[in-house]
Amino acid sequence: MDLMKLKRILSGVQPSGKLHIGNYFGAIRQHIALQNEGECFYFIADYHSMTTIQNAKTRLEHVRDVALDYLALGLDPSKALLFRQSDVPEVCELAWILGTVSNMSLMEKAHSYKDKIAKGIEASIGLFTYPVLMAADILIYRSNLVPVGQDQVQHIEITRDLAEKFHRAYGKEVFPLPEHRLDVGAKVPGVDGQKMSKSYGNTIEIFAEGNPLKKTIMGIVTDSTPVEAPKNPENDTIFTLFSLFAYETEIAELANRYRAGGLGYGDSKKMLLEKVNGYFGPFREKRKELASRPDYVEDVLRTSARKARAEAIATMEQVREASGFLKQPISV
Amino acid sequence: MDLMKLKRILSGVQPSGKLHIGNYFGAIRQHIALQNEGECFYFIADYHSMTTIQNAKTRLEHVRDVALDYLALGLDPSKALLFRQSDVPEVCELAWILGTVSNMSLMEKAHSYKDKIAKGIEASIGLFTYPVLMAADILIYRSNLVPVGQDQVQHIEITRDLAEKFHRAYGKEVFPLPEHRLDVGAKVPGVDGQKMSKSYGNTIEIFAEGNPLKKTIMGIVTDSTPVEAPKNPENDTIFTLFSLFAYETEIAELANRYRAGGLGYGDSKKMLLEKVNGYFGPFREKRKELASRPDYVEDVLRTSARKARAEAIATMEQVREASGFLKQPISV
Repeated sequence: MDLMKLKRILSGVQPSGKLHIGNYFGAIRQHIALQNEGECFYFIADYHSMTTIQNAKTRLEHVRDVALDYLALGLDPSKALLFRQSDVPEVCELAWILGTVSNMSLMEKAHSYKDKIAKGIEASIGLFTYPVLMAADILIYRSNLVPVGQDQVQHIEITRDLAEKFHRAYGKEVFPLPEHRLDVGAKVPGVDGQKMSKSYGNTIEIFAEGNPLKKTIMGIVTDSTPVEAPKNPENDTIFTLFSLFAYETEIAELANRYRAGGLGYGDSKKMLLEKVNGYFGPFREKRKELASRPDYVEDVLRTSARKARAEAIATMEQVREASGFLKQPISV
Repeated sequence: MDLMKLKRILSGVQPSGKLHIGNYFGAIRQHIALQNEGECFYFIADYHSMTTIQNAKTRLEHVRDVALDYLALGLDPSKALLFRQSDVPEVCELAWILGTVSNMSLMEKAHSYKDKIAKGIEASIGLFTYPVLMAADILIYRSNLVPVGQDQVQHIEITRDLAEKFHRAYGKEVFPLPEHRLDVGAKVPGVDGQKMSKSYGNTIEIFAEGNPLKKTIMGIVTDSTPVEAPKNPENDTIFTLFSLFAYETEIAELANRYRAGGLGYGDSKKMLLEKVNGYFGPFREKRKELASRPDYVEDVLRTSARKARAEAIATMEQVREASGFLKQPISV
């Protein structure tokens, strides 16, 4: 018999504004489902967000939005923790400590840094040392598993590397070495047919509804095949999006209607709109209901933070002792 | 009438082993005297020391030594705070925050980094971001004045720059802009006539005594002028060191004896040894007495840390609020 050990699963969520259905089918849905597979520590990365957002009001709004989004989409606070990164300031202490065992070259190689520089984003120390704080986020909860997109795999390797460097330097094994779990979600096209991405301005927001949502979906770019002509469902954006929401039989039926001719793109857009509304409608209602109970949401964040911080402090006691500090800093 | 405002004075002391009389006359003596001119926050830089020392035992010993040294040399815990940097982990949080408003180029220009790289010290993130943590050390106590050597003046400029960047980014003036106060201590030659420096291996330790001290002083390098010949007191290491300890009349008398001839370097070395013993003898006794009361020393460090941390937390409340975090992190 296989004994399954309960895994600790970590994910950081950027408070970067409105989520779109590419985020949802690409990662969020799977991340939320992981709450049934282990102890999930999900934090809203508000320290990290300082590298891009330098406004308190915007940050507070985005943090609240992410919390509402995740709770509405099914994150169950009785199963998973959802908390603000900044409620556990010990991660910054661990980041300093990991920075002292991290070579500059390790950071200079990081894709995320190179990519941002290539995009002309002004380099701050925060941006450069981002992977060190990320390693601290992962290690401070002694996480076993981190679900990530392909672009983040390198950061998990850096994290393992820093954990081992700390162990070697201080002769004590504090951290389990975390594994990554590659998001195997759907590739979701945006309304222009490119990959859906906020930076392309081609998204369909999860919590959009009514006329704005209708306008977005009716605006999906198609080819100019006339209504009566047969159409190829493959590579058609509407069809691909429809497939995310529909049963196999519905997908096959729509494919047949594409190939038969006589179905206009306007019709398939309406079918897509109906599916989107059917799927996200209940989540939207849940979100509105949660938004009307800010105290409840704040309570979830605080209760989670309390548990997360206790774990972080327990880890830091080991780190501090191994480093030659008092086990706990002096209490005021 | 001039109203003198009580200044807050900050200094970080590296726990880097045995102090020598170059440290003492160059900086420490003046730093300790500042306890009569303002509120001194003196911290033992054990987070910083992680960039060079990766051993808990060594760090603990050095931290204890520095505490004994400073208390023996006259730091009065009823006037000045003396605490471990690591007892106020909030500095690491502030360092992260300041890093997000700091350009990479600001660090790349820092002399301390360039110097260490030039010396072939392997560059870590900790070494590179050292000036950001130093800025956090200064700003978190809202310090007004930082006594520094010439090589540290740039770091105070960086600190002012980061404070202003934070103020501009978040629209709130949290930090007074600190001034530096250049150490105007004596230039002290080592036993080989070069500047006294641990890296040259030419030091006379403050707390050396007995035969080891005698051997060091009798080993001071001189020219080969014979005993009977007249000697030039200028540029003579023994004479220069003697002048640090002696009254004007004694200095003038020794200069006359140098010029008259008939005084051997062995004799002036013995005179120097007597002065060193006379000056540092009481400090040595004080240090031994303190070393026999480790609980008292630990209590000084803890009591100071408690006060310092309360100040740091008060500053961080403002910083966190301005940044869009809860005023205080969730308490466990």
